[in-house]
Amino acid sequence: MKLESFVCGQWAAPGRDLIEIASAVSGDVVAQATSGGIDMRKTLDYARGTGGAHLRRLTFHQRADMLKKLGQYLTERKEQLYKLSFQTGATRIDNMIDVDGGIGTLFVYAGKGRRELPNAKFLLDGGVESLSKTGSFAGQHIVTPLHGVAVHINAFNFPCWGMLEKLAPALLAGVPVVTKPATVTSYVAHALARMIAESGILPAGAFQFVVGSTGDLFDHLTCQDVVSFTGSAQTSEKLQRHPVIAREAVRFVAERDSLNAAILAPDAAPGTPEFDLFIKEVAKEMTVKAGQKCTAIRRAIAPAAHVDAVIAALRERLAKITIGNPELESVRMGPLVGLDQRRDVLAHVAKLRSEAELVSGDPDRFSVEGADAARGAFVPPLLLHCANPASAVSVHAIEAFGPVCTVMGYDALDDAVTLANRGGGSLVASVYTHDTKIASDLVFGIGSFHGRLVMIDRDCAKEQTGHGSPMPQMVHGGPGRAGGGEELGGIRSLQHYMQRTALQGSPAMLTGITGSWSKGAAIVEKERHPFRYHFEDLDIGQTFMSKERTITLEDVKHFAHFTGDTFYAHMDEEATKEHPFFPGRVAHGYLLLSFAAGLFVDPDPGPVLANYGLDSLRFVKPVQPGEAIKVRLTAKEKSPRNKQYGEVRWDVEITTATGETAATYELLTMNAVRP
Amino acid sequence: MKLESFVCGQWAAPGRDLIEIASAVSGDVVAQATSGGIDMRKTLDYARGTGGAHLRRLTFHQRADMLKKLGQYLTERKEQLYKLSFQTGATRIDNMIDVDGGIGTLFVYAGKGRRELPNAKFLLDGGVESLSKTGSFAGQHIVTPLHGVAVHINAFNFPCWGMLEKLAPALLAGVPVVTKPATVTSYVAHALARMIAESGILPAGAFQFVVGSTGDLFDHLTCQDVVSFTGSAQTSEKLQRHPVIAREAVRFVAERDSLNAAILAPDAAPGTPEFDLFIKEVAKEMTVKAGQKCTAIRRAIAPAAHVDAVIAALRERLAKITIGNPELESVRMGPLVGLDQRRDVLAHVAKLRSEAELVSGDPDRFSVEGADAARGAFVPPLLLHCANPASAVSVHAIEAFGPVCTVMGYDALDDAVTLANRGGGSLVASVYTHDTKIASDLVFGIGSFHGRLVMIDRDCAKEQTGHGSPMPQMVHGGPGRAGGGEELGGIRSLQHYMQRTALQGSPAMLTGITGSWSKGAAIVEKERHPFRYHFEDLDIGQTFMSKERTITLEDVKHFAHFTGDTFYAHMDEEATKEHPFFPGRVAHGYLLLSFAAGLFVDPDPGPVLANYGLDSLRFVKPVQPGEAIKVRLTAKEKSPRNKQYGEVRWDVEITTATGETAATYELLTMNAVRP
Repeated sequence: MKLESFVCGQWAAPGRDLIEIASAVSGDVVAQATSGGIDMRKTLDYARGTGGAHLRRLTFHQRADMLKKLGQYLTERKEQLYKLSFQTGATRIDNMIDVDGGIGTLFVYAGKGRRELPNAKFLLDGGVESLSKTGSFAGQHIVTPLHGVAVHINAFNFPCWGMLEKLAPALLAGVPVVTKPATVTSYVAHALARMIAESGILPAGAFQFVVGSTGDLFDHLTCQDVVSFTGSAQTSEKLQRHPVIAREAVRFVAERDSLNAAILAPDAAPGTPEFDLFIKEVAKEMTVKAGQKCTAIRRAIAPAAHVDAVIAALRERLAKITIGNPELESVRMGPLVGLDQRRDVLAHVAKLRSEAELVSGDPDRFSVEGADAARGAFVPPLLLHCANPASAVSVHAIEAFGPVCTVMGYDALDDAVTLANRGGGSLVASVYTHDTKIASDLVFGIGSFHGRLVMIDRDCAKEQTGHGSPMPQMVHGGPGRAGGGEELGGIRSLQHYMQRTALQGSPAMLTGITGSWSKGAAIVEKERHPFRYHFEDLDIGQTFMSKERTITLEDVKHFAHFTGDTFYAHMDEEATKEHPFFPGRVAHGYLLLSFAAGLFVDPDPGPVLANYGLDSLRFVKPVQPGEAIKVRLTAKEKSPRNKQYGEVRWDVEITTATGETAATYELLTMNAVRP
Repeated sequence: MKLESFVCGQWAAPGRDLIEIASAVSGDVVAQATSGGIDMRKTLDYARGTGGAHLRRLTFHQRADMLKKLGQYLTERKEQLYKLSFQTGATRIDNMIDVDGGIGTLFVYAGKGRRELPNAKFLLDGGVESLSKTGSFAGQHIVTPLHGVAVHINAFNFPCWGMLEKLAPALLAGVPVVTKPATVTSYVAHALARMIAESGILPAGAFQFVVGSTGDLFDHLTCQDVVSFTGSAQTSEKLQRHPVIAREAVRFVAERDSLNAAILAPDAAPGTPEFDLFIKEVAKEMTVKAGQKCTAIRRAIAPAAHVDAVIAALRERLAKITIGNPELESVRMGPLVGLDQRRDVLAHVAKLRSEAELVSGDPDRFSVEGADAARGAFVPPLLLHCANPASAVSVHAIEAFGPVCTVMGYDALDDAVTLANRGGGSLVASVYTHDTKIASDLVFGIGSFHGRLVMIDRDCAKEQTGHGSPMPQMVHGGPGRAGGGEELGGIRSLQHYMQRTALQGSPAMLTGITGSWSKGAAIVEKERHPFRYHFEDLDIGQTFMSKERTITLEDVKHFAHFTGDTFYAHMDEEATKEHPFFPGRVAHGYLLLSFAAGLFVDPDPGPVLANYGLDSLRFVKPVQPGEAIKVRLTAKEKSPRNKQYGEVRWDVEITTATGETAATYELLTMNAVRP
């Protein structure tokens, strides 16, 4: 099968140099990739001109819906991907991580896009900043999609997850994607890309797929483009140092494999559930995907006293792992992705053995089920033990990207912190303890060297998602050796594809641009109450000014007895004299809120369907019995929800008769769209 | 005067190579800097070991107080800095921007640190993410200070502001600083650094100052360090491509000068206030600091029809600028920083003249007041006009870092957008219009190419802070040519010096580590009501479970008439039948809130002084007359405020008798500390 690229809306295999890709299991050629021959400048321009323009016309909610549809489309076709993936050495469980995990990311971003983002084309970032004495000049940050391309360069180990976890946030942000898979598993990525293209769900130019090398793509990058790379430190460094990256300040997000640690805490002695969880997790991380995971545990750090027990338990567990053809139900671990990878891993293990002793597994003696061990890229789980980890160098620096892990002991907890941080920055570490104090000491000792920390104990054992599994809700990426990048983390990852811009101007100008009213901008008082206007007819800034109402001592007493809130500061003038900041008996805050609603409500049926919430309420100044209050209610923001309703956020201010602010809050209503 | 470096707690001039620094005004030597001879590894280690450890022991509020003290200390001594700065060519107004602007940044960060950050040593980022079906596994992001050094490399033009605007966020984040001034104005930076060191306000190791070259400093950087560079594109690119930056994924924040635009909108014809504001701002940006500002206007983009009027008005205004010795009251513009700078500017102007015509100012004929024109680095304001900006290249790429600006015309608004974006990414653009629709089109056309956009019109004319002035509240930095970095922007800039880490674990474990209770973590019910406990005695998770209260139809009617909130959905069963999501007549949301307060309040005087606010209230399910409610109140977070009080955030949930959630919110109380 000859793999084609999908650029400028067409499938083609323009390159002449053929690369043969072999099955990891049988060694037979399963696909041919070509490289070169693609006009990268045209590809990028097509994305920018066609894809970007299409995507930026959609709102976040429309893009989210698109991701959901794509997720559903791929779910129906996932067995095809499983089938191809067996040839990469992946077992059924490995496939679920790759295929289902990738599709799951689309669904999480679809859901978050709907729930956490406005139905708009840009975002507000933070609140309005006052930049002047009288308020005629203010600031507001906005976040808009870059006008460029997201260039995604993926690793071989997760051809589906890797493509989709990068795709989802870029598309949700409104930026088109050019994705390049790693060649050795590109036949799986190719099948996925075909599905995406055939689905017709994404607008033209939003998705392009380049098999083979990136050619001169980097030469054509600009400040509006983003490179998101996953793979080895060596390739990442080379790409990051391309002159265009610094010259054009092209955003470069790197996610490199790292020397991730699992730390057994002193309280987790043999016999505790946490000890067992540690053993289970280390063994799992060594064998899932044959250890070819950038998040896998490479260093198992345990109290010196328990090192022997750890090795014995791991040895026992690893001995039960059946290696072989991943299509077989009985097989727990498949081969590495190819013979080159096996050669690299074995070479790295040889180097590690200068500082560590091989205590479990023998690369030259192991059995393989259902495949020819001589032709497939099989390696057994190899456990090492480093007796002097403080002085060792390679165990903290050399990553054997396969089923390989080194056990090392520590004395004091501080030593465990030092050892973990010797990785020079990692994607993830896991901590096994049931003691929050120990967990806390570890978290604040190693936190700034890690992108993610998983605390595994008996309380979360059944549901914990694993040391090695990035979750779309949480950031994935880490400092230093791990590349210094961040991916995922829910809506956070949209920032990579968007530009934050500080806007400064008069409040009226800011309101006109952002569609968000802020104090100081003009208010609009129309003939009818603002609650009389349908969602689309309501103007931002439209305001209701209430009449005054005096709060009597009777009101306060009555409210207290009616609600049961007889707090002394409302009831007892004498007792309140001792109060550090109340001037005397004061009205209940909830009385103010309730009276305010009474002052601004418009009782008859109309477009306002419900007050469904309230944000950022602050009682600024206590109100005493005898004082009068009035309310200003101003339409601050509108966000369409569906064809029937839209959400309106109101800026509300309760003032006293003397004009002092007593309380401020934001009120949320659901408003009907014109019938 | 021989300038010394301040490293490892000592002042020294270890280098042997002397560099002579000349006055910009007279050409006389005013200082000597030495370069080299500093043990950079020791300097960095001193910062990490001593400075970082000291700073991380403080809370954000303590660090904020330190910045305030420093600001006060420097304010008392600022005249000394003014005096020295005259020699750099700076006028009194230039000095105010540099010195007062820099000190002002300290005060803004002190204020924001107190108001916007918790009194803690780390930050929570976002809310708790559920990662499991039954809730036993969840995620929470935290942000902790890096364990490294902030290396600040500053530009020559703002020796004080440049140092302080980088210092404030780094120290507030908890990261020690090594600052390196540009040599040509290092005698001013040196005086400031002496003041900082002598004040004794910062802990040992928190601040070091290196005059001269950075030597081998970059070779010793790690993933915990941050380089923040301000200066030319060329130097920035060179530094960013240092092999250690990519290898260790060292954070590199660049702020480079750019080809910033001012855009006169079509509505701002001659005779309008916006036209006059445009002329005033362009002239100001050309002459303040003799145009040596990375934010200065380099391209004045105006409707083709108004280009002649723009040139005429600018010519008239620039003719009134008196050039000369900046110490003189009558002088509006001083010399460039030195003769090298003058040579560079004139060479760049010569290149620009291949595409643009010089229409105002003559580098060979202008008068200088109070100084010897032959010895000082004087250049007059030089205005160019480019007749074919669409096909021109250098006017969008070559920055003459002096009093130089090019006027260019546009036809349609889209052309103005294209021209502005031809800068390839800029720090700032200003827009002159009184039409929010035009402003909006420009903002969304050029937003992703700019870090900051200023809309200048009649409404904000008196108070607007200027095209060229970065404000500490707003981000400073821009994409592409501008370096791709971000500085300032209030609390946002702390992120450069801190690491975000995803924590995953059981809710109990997350609560134990973060000190923030989340649903699913254990609740603690003690003998007494939680409102009976002083701030320090209250446990996170401590909970009050209320009794039930039935809401009767009478209650709803009574509340309606008492408060005036007679909304039909509370009053009229018949009318509510038409309602799209209410099942029938429902209780007021504010009635639920008020009854909830009645259910959980503890009336007698005690440690809880006041309920001062409420956040994130959502009415999840309507409650109908006849249904009973009850309340759970759980201490979620505590933040000490001062010696008398602390703030407590409570997680509140109102449920119906059947256990369904009716409303959720967070309640804020001020609690007394033990007497």
